[in-house]
Amino acid sequence: MIVDAMRRIRQRLYRQVVDTGPKQRTSAFNRIIAAAIIISIFFSIVATEEAIQAKYGDHLIRLDWIIAILFCIEYCIRLWVSPLDGRYGKGIRGIVNYVLSPLAMIDVIAILPTFLGIISPELYTLRVFRLVRIGKIGRSRRFKEGLYYFNQAIKSKTQELQISATYTLMLVLLSSTFMYLTESKVQPELFGSIPRCIWWAIMTVTTVGYGDAIPVTGLGKVIASATALMGIGVIAIPVGILAAGFSESFRKKRIENEQTVQ
Amino acid sequence: MIVDAMRRIRQRLYRQVVDTGPKQRTSAFNRIIAAAIIISIFFSIVATEEAIQAKYGDHLIRLDWIIAILFCIEYCIRLWVSPLDGRYGKGIRGIVNYVLSPLAMIDVIAILPTFLGIISPELYTLRVFRLVRIGKIGRSRRFKEGLYYFNQAIKSKTQELQISATYTLMLVLLSSTFMYLTESKVQPELFGSIPRCIWWAIMTVTTVGYGDAIPVTGLGKVIASATALMGIGVIAIPVGILAAGFSESFRKKRIENEQTVQ
Amino acid sequence: MIVDAMRRIRQRLYRQVVDTGPKQRTSAFNRIIAAAIIISIFFSIVATEEAIQAKYGDHLIRLDWIIAILFCIEYCIRLWVSPLDGRYGKGIRGIVNYVLSPLAMIDVIAILPTFLGIISPELYTLRVFRLVRIGKIGRSRRFKEGLYYFNQAIKSKTQELQISATYTLMLVLLSSTFMYLTESKVQPELFGSIPRCIWWAIMTVTTVGYGDAIPVTGLGKVIASATALMGIGVIAIPVGILAAGFSESFRKKRIENEQTVQ
Amino acid sequence: MIVDAMRRIRQRLYRQVVDTGPKQRTSAFNRIIAAAIIISIFFSIVATEEAIQAKYGDHLIRLDWIIAILFCIEYCIRLWVSPLDGRYGKGIRGIVNYVLSPLAMIDVIAILPTFLGIISPELYTLRVFRLVRIGKIGRSRRFKEGLYYFNQAIKSKTQELQISATYTLMLVLLSSTFMYLTESKVQPELFGSIPRCIWWAIMTVTTVGYGDAIPVTGLGKVIASATALMGIGVIAIPVGILAAGFSESFRKKRIENEQTVQ
Repeated sequence: MIVDAMRRIRQRLYRQVVDTGPKQRTSAFNRIIAAAIIISIFFSIVATEEAIQAKYGDHLIRLDWIIAILFCIEYCIRLWVSPLDGRYGKGIRGIVNYVLSPLAMIDVIAILPTFLGIISPELYTLRVFRLVRIGKIGRSRRFKEGLYYFNQAIKSKTQELQISATYTLMLVLLSSTFMYLTESKVQPELFGSIPRCIWWAIMTVTTVGYGDAIPVTGLGKVIASATALMGIGVIAIPVGILAAGFSESFRKKRIENEQTVQ
Repeated sequence: MIVDAMRRIRQRLYRQVVDTGPKQRTSAFNRIIAAAIIISIFFSIVATEEAIQAKYGDHLIRLDWIIAILFCIEYCIRLWVSPLDGRYGKGIRGIVNYVLSPLAMIDVIAILPTFLGIISPELYTLRVFRLVRIGKIGRSRRFKEGLYYFNQAIKSKTQELQISATYTLMLVLLSSTFMYLTESKVQPELFGSIPRCIWWAIMTVTTVGYGDAIPVTGLGKVIASATALMGIGVIAIPVGILAAGFSESFRKKRIENEQTVQ
Repeated sequence: MIVDAMRRIRQRLYRQVVDTGPKQRTSAFNRIIAAAIIISIFFSIVATEEAIQAKYGDHLIRLDWIIAILFCIEYCIRLWVSPLDGRYGKGIRGIVNYVLSPLAMIDVIAILPTFLGIISPELYTLRVFRLVRIGKIGRSRRFKEGLYYFNQAIKSKTQELQISATYTLMLVLLSSTFMYLTESKVQPELFGSIPRCIWWAIMTVTTVGYGDAIPVTGLGKVIASATALMGIGVIAIPVGILAAGFSESFRKKRIENEQTVQ
Repeated sequence: MIVDAMRRIRQRLYRQVVDTGPKQRTSAFNRIIAAAIIISIFFSIVATEEAIQAKYGDHLIRLDWIIAILFCIEYCIRLWVSPLDGRYGKGIRGIVNYVLSPLAMIDVIAILPTFLGIISPELYTLRVFRLVRIGKIGRSRRFKEGLYYFNQAIKSKTQELQISATYTLMLVLLSSTFMYLTESKVQPELFGSIPRCIWWAIMTVTTVGYGDAIPVTGLGKVIASATALMGIGVIAIPVGILAAGFSESFRKKRIENEQTVQ
């Protein structure tokens, strides 16, 4: 009797966990976990700010424990129902395989710092690892479906994007080299080696332009101007490729949807 | 007789207000109001500059009153003709419903500061709220029609834009975390907490690059370079999606226009 | 006899000027003028640099005179052949109409500073007006043909580009207002009025990011981050519209070319 | 016998060099060379950093020699097999033609500095020329094939990209001129000549925005704002053109691939 009830609860929990309910809705279980992830990420970020740490430190530790226990329960549930999932195998082997899966490991890494914090306060800086929970957000089924056509658009244009990346690489290396030859004597601190010039070149071609490294010689400014203008291609070329890729991918999606309807 | 004349005037004013004249032209009423909005926004902005306030303060107050009275008249006209509009209901109920509509409230908020300024000069800082008039510009019918296909293009790609937003969020959080681990010791003022690193990360991935927070360690520069390069995607991906979305939307518009003509 | 020879020379010069030779080649006359324009623009720019002025001043003045005389000759030729062009009318009226045409006026403005320089050296700063010659570059026929489909792509999307411009305007005004409310007390020099905040907002939404005006308060940084992220749309939306517009325009061009061939 | 064996080795080496193995795989020879190029470029860049030079100088020189000898062997092999390639002609003439080909010259320039370094340490700065090896990466056959449709997309839109470049040029020159007229008196160091203003203008229209040259006058800021806003077109127009160009090119590629399959 109890075994039977347990089995039914397990089945139900499994359905909640893998999110295969009717009407494509996200299950209550996954909604709670998603909310907990977002809350925990938010407070993990905020807690690194010392002013907030000093003021709300106690509350943050309490919240930390509540969320840690919640994730512990989640972990146990996922462990318990893992043999029901075909991917991990049956019985104990299923549980072991699940424990060793990357997603389960992320879970452990995310919970661990809270418990290790008791043993030694020095391990408290490990809190940052809680941010690995970000990786869990991508688990939602709807998100994965949306990602399919998205990835298709990018994958189908891999070769073209590689050429664009090569263009960027070449531009960065060439402008760095020219800048090194021109400015290394005048501003050794900023342009005294090619790696330093690469820092300048990347910040220029991506149009970030922090303004910490700026050429001062006339020729240096000409090189920087040319780099900035050719840097338009660094953004324009991948955008053009992606636009064409998405255009194709969306057309394919529409055609497939129409065929499904008929 | 007078009632009849009033009714006719009301009808005419209503047509002016809702802008349903022949030939799709904007009505004289709406043109005057649009001009008044633009003038009042312009002077509200300029009046915040102290040098101008000191020099032309009296003129600005006078202009303020002229425009406030004009908007009062507009408000009364809209109030009077509102029952003729099916949306708000007939008679007094129509007027009450109109008063409670968001657009009517914007109007009140925009006029109020001028009148409150008599009671207490401290309320003068409320002038800034006059900028809510910006929201009224979008009322024009032609603008709304143009907006339809525009919004369609964006709405039909909501899911893809969400994925793009997730990419941006992930990139910002990951690069912030890495930067925090790398630079928090060296530059505690700028990178001493993840929220501070998020400020840096957003300014880097959007390629704004103010240059107030710049990594100084070698590893920090490598992370910043990688962030800047991956930041290309932050712009390239939504652009690609929107380009494909607009392309579809414009094709649909053309087909619909051709069908209307036939 | 002489009249006849003159007429033939005039005809020939006219063909050179309007550039209707065989094989769609640019005429020798227009090539020389184009080269002279580029040279004169280049040296007009360079001559504003004092170091170069001091060193090569004499040579620059000589070059200036050579180019001025060349443009004088060009102007006379254009004047002489202008009655042959249907647009300006016959005889003296043709010449008068030509003199009053915008392009002819640009020519006069470009030549004048050199001759005025003799009368008074103060007028020498008018040299900068020589840059109006830039406007003459666009005269070439091939360039005009290329411009047709280009302008079509942009014109056909005017309404959508207006919506995009409205988005930019709204974003600039709203973020300026919020920034004014947040930072005006803390940094009155930089954010003490809405026009000052607009300067910051434009430099942020266009992702230029000079870094002269940076918020220092927490809320100010949140507003700036939101502005920077929404600033992606300022670039992404017009790009998407233009991409779709060019795509349509190029398809139309291809179809028209195919129909011409058949 | 030996001659025959030599011929067979030569044939085999040639196939390795020109990379015409089965299954479109890159040959072992070219893989080793590609790896050597990447390693040598990486260390050539890193070696310019003085801190690394001081610490690992001896190792870097040794690595330099190893790679130089490897490239020497490669050069000799390519020289030996060059007559087998139809492009260079047979026998000695083939070898001479190969030596004079641009790619072979790049090889010599890349190896030379190492050997010249023995004669005179001053020539050591020539090491930077080793970066010309970057040009060799593009040799791989698969990369060339990918480049075909990529170049097509860009070439077919040359005229439109020229118009876009003209727009950029005009914007830079006009905004520089206006800025010169406005700010040259106030900030002669930064805006005292048009070439200096061009530096500012390029850094603004490309949205790099280093922040070294910033207008301070009200009118200067208005010009800078207008420049920044019109600078959106500098990026948006080429992106739109390229997106349309890639879209066409990819459609053509798909059609050609489908025809090949049938």
